[in-house]
Amino acid sequence: MNRRGTTTTVVFGAALLAICQSVAFAQPAPGPLPSWNDGAAKKAIIAFVERVTKPGSSDFVPVPERIATFDNDGTLWAEQPMYFQLAFALDRVKALAPTHPEWKDKEPFASLLKGDLKGALAGGEPAIVQIMMATHAGMTTEEFDSIVRDWVARAKHPKTGQLYTEMVYQPMLELLTYLRANGFKTFIVSGGGIDFMRPWTEKVYGVPPEQVIGSSIKTTFERRNGKPVLVRLPELNFVDDKAGKPVGIHQHVGRRPIAAFGNSDGDLEMLQWTTAGAGARFGLLVRHTDAAREWAYDRASPIGRLDKALDEAGARGWTVVDMKTDWKVIYPFEKR
Amino acid sequence: MNRRGTTTTVVFGAALLAICQSVAFAQPAPGPLPSWNDGAAKKAIIAFVERVTKPGSSDFVPVPERIATFDNDGTLWAEQPMYFQLAFALDRVKALAPTHPEWKDKEPFASLLKGDLKGALAGGEPAIVQIMMATHAGMTTEEFDSIVRDWVARAKHPKTGQLYTEMVYQPMLELLTYLRANGFKTFIVSGGGIDFMRPWTEKVYGVPPEQVIGSSIKTTFERRNGKPVLVRLPELNFVDDKAGKPVGIHQHVGRRPIAAFGNSDGDLEMLQWTTAGAGARFGLLVRHTDAAREWAYDRASPIGRLDKALDEAGARGWTVVDMKTDWKVIYPFEKR
Repeated sequence: MNRRGTTTTVVFGAALLAICQSVAFAQPAPGPLPSWNDGAAKKAIIAFVERVTKPGSSDFVPVPERIATFDNDGTLWAEQPMYFQLAFALDRVKALAPTHPEWKDKEPFASLLKGDLKGALAGGEPAIVQIMMATHAGMTTEEFDSIVRDWVARAKHPKTGQLYTEMVYQPMLELLTYLRANGFKTFIVSGGGIDFMRPWTEKVYGVPPEQVIGSSIKTTFERRNGKPVLVRLPELNFVDDKAGKPVGIHQHVGRRPIAAFGNSDGDLEMLQWTTAGAGARFGLLVRHTDAAREWAYDRASPIGRLDKALDEAGARGWTVVDMKTDWKVIYPFEKR
Repeated sequence: MNRRGTTTTVVFGAALLAICQSVAFAQPAPGPLPSWNDGAAKKAIIAFVERVTKPGSSDFVPVPERIATFDNDGTLWAEQPMYFQLAFALDRVKALAPTHPEWKDKEPFASLLKGDLKGALAGGEPAIVQIMMATHAGMTTEEFDSIVRDWVARAKHPKTGQLYTEMVYQPMLELLTYLRANGFKTFIVSGGGIDFMRPWTEKVYGVPPEQVIGSSIKTTFERRNGKPVLVRLPELNFVDDKAGKPVGIHQHVGRRPIAAFGNSDGDLEMLQWTTAGAGARFGLLVRHTDAAREWAYDRASPIGRLDKALDEAGARGWTVVDMKTDWKVIYPFEKR
């Protein structure tokens, strides 16, 4: 076959394929974001994605610059009645108690082990830091990875009885998929622990460990039983919350996102930083308005407080999602 | 067309395409790593890649776990007669001198401005830190990005007269490409500044900013002229060298690489950490043996000292590249 013959046949073969495929898929496609009602939020998301992906458009953004950042607690998965990582820490305190007899007389552990959560947390932030360090440090990074994997595979949410990794928002899973299908790289940017999220984000959200940004403790390289390991130290390294979020994004990604998704005042600076860049930008806040299917809380909530960021959303043109009216379903298990 | 007809035609079209493509590309392909001589190093690289990418092989590694980490100075680009980032800093001192009249009487700046580099660096590490902080901090992240872009577009290497970004190793560029073509994600893990590398690594190495790990200073989120910015502070954040490299890799990637590439004792812990993992692992050291085409230095060099890591290479089965005999060309500009 000469060169021209080859080319013609290739073109013919490709055309045939295209025709056959269009016949095979002639039923109307379901369209993006099927669990979103056709309201302003869904329209705003799709309009933004179409603007930045349309070749030749003045708002076109090349694929490598299509960076989208997502908060986790309250944005991708639920955060009530307490941050899920705190539930993990409390379970770990119980599991470790037999090897820590001194905890019986030492706060906040003593109250915790008596089932008095309120008493344990009465110590405020220092008490929480003590609980976190006692349960998150002292082991190698690989040991901690196993501990987290084991916990997320078994622990159940106190209200729904579902695995915590089932308490994710179906509409947000669709949003992650939709953005990636349009060339976006999706990152998690959470106040939660980076190494608490990484063992399961790839399976649950399709976000690989290297695209997870979070708070961290220090680690140190050493040799244990002749093998090099990284050991987790009871010392804070970085707090990826509020003004720390743009810092964490710069440290990990090295470019400003063009879209950011959050739900609380902890995400305010991330949305400010993202949407202040030149060109088309998108900011979105998930508002927890559905007491029946999820929870309803905002300005007065100690967990996931949404107050200043809500005030700023209007002025800055950020999209506010009303969970009750914008989302057809909340969790994937509702659809089964 | 009924469903069976569609399927048959699609299969037929696909087969036709496959045949035509095999005809169109019947000339023998050049093979990977064309600038590498057919020695032990090239063979070891290809054997490793084939082992981990062969489906069904006991050494098969799924694509998301194919993480390869590369040192930069002396591994991907040259590092003589001084680290290129130090050359950048010295140029910046000269550029900034008019706005710093006090430098005329203040070391290490006074010596530097008189052209006495040796005198300036006589102050050791504190002198270098002073120079780095004076030239790398105080501006926003976006301003620093522009400064670096401008410098790499203009500054020339004192020996070759080439742009610094031309002083990269052609065989290593081919290695990066070869690994990525085999599903690897390639990361840079350098003692150099993360924000000094990011403005040009995508263009020069095909490594996007989010896959660059390096040393860093702290940044802080603030508002300048009503706009949110990140400001670079004269305060060390992280040193990504020696035992810091595995820590930096864990922080950024969250999984252990399966292959690591370095050239000096600064890479020893990265290679130890990488090759101690379970399954097939690969460690490689570039040895600078070519005084004619590049430089020859190892155990006694203050820059890029290769001593302990070279001793360990044999015992651990790491591949040692001899630049003089393994590489057909050193720099891309030799081929023009």
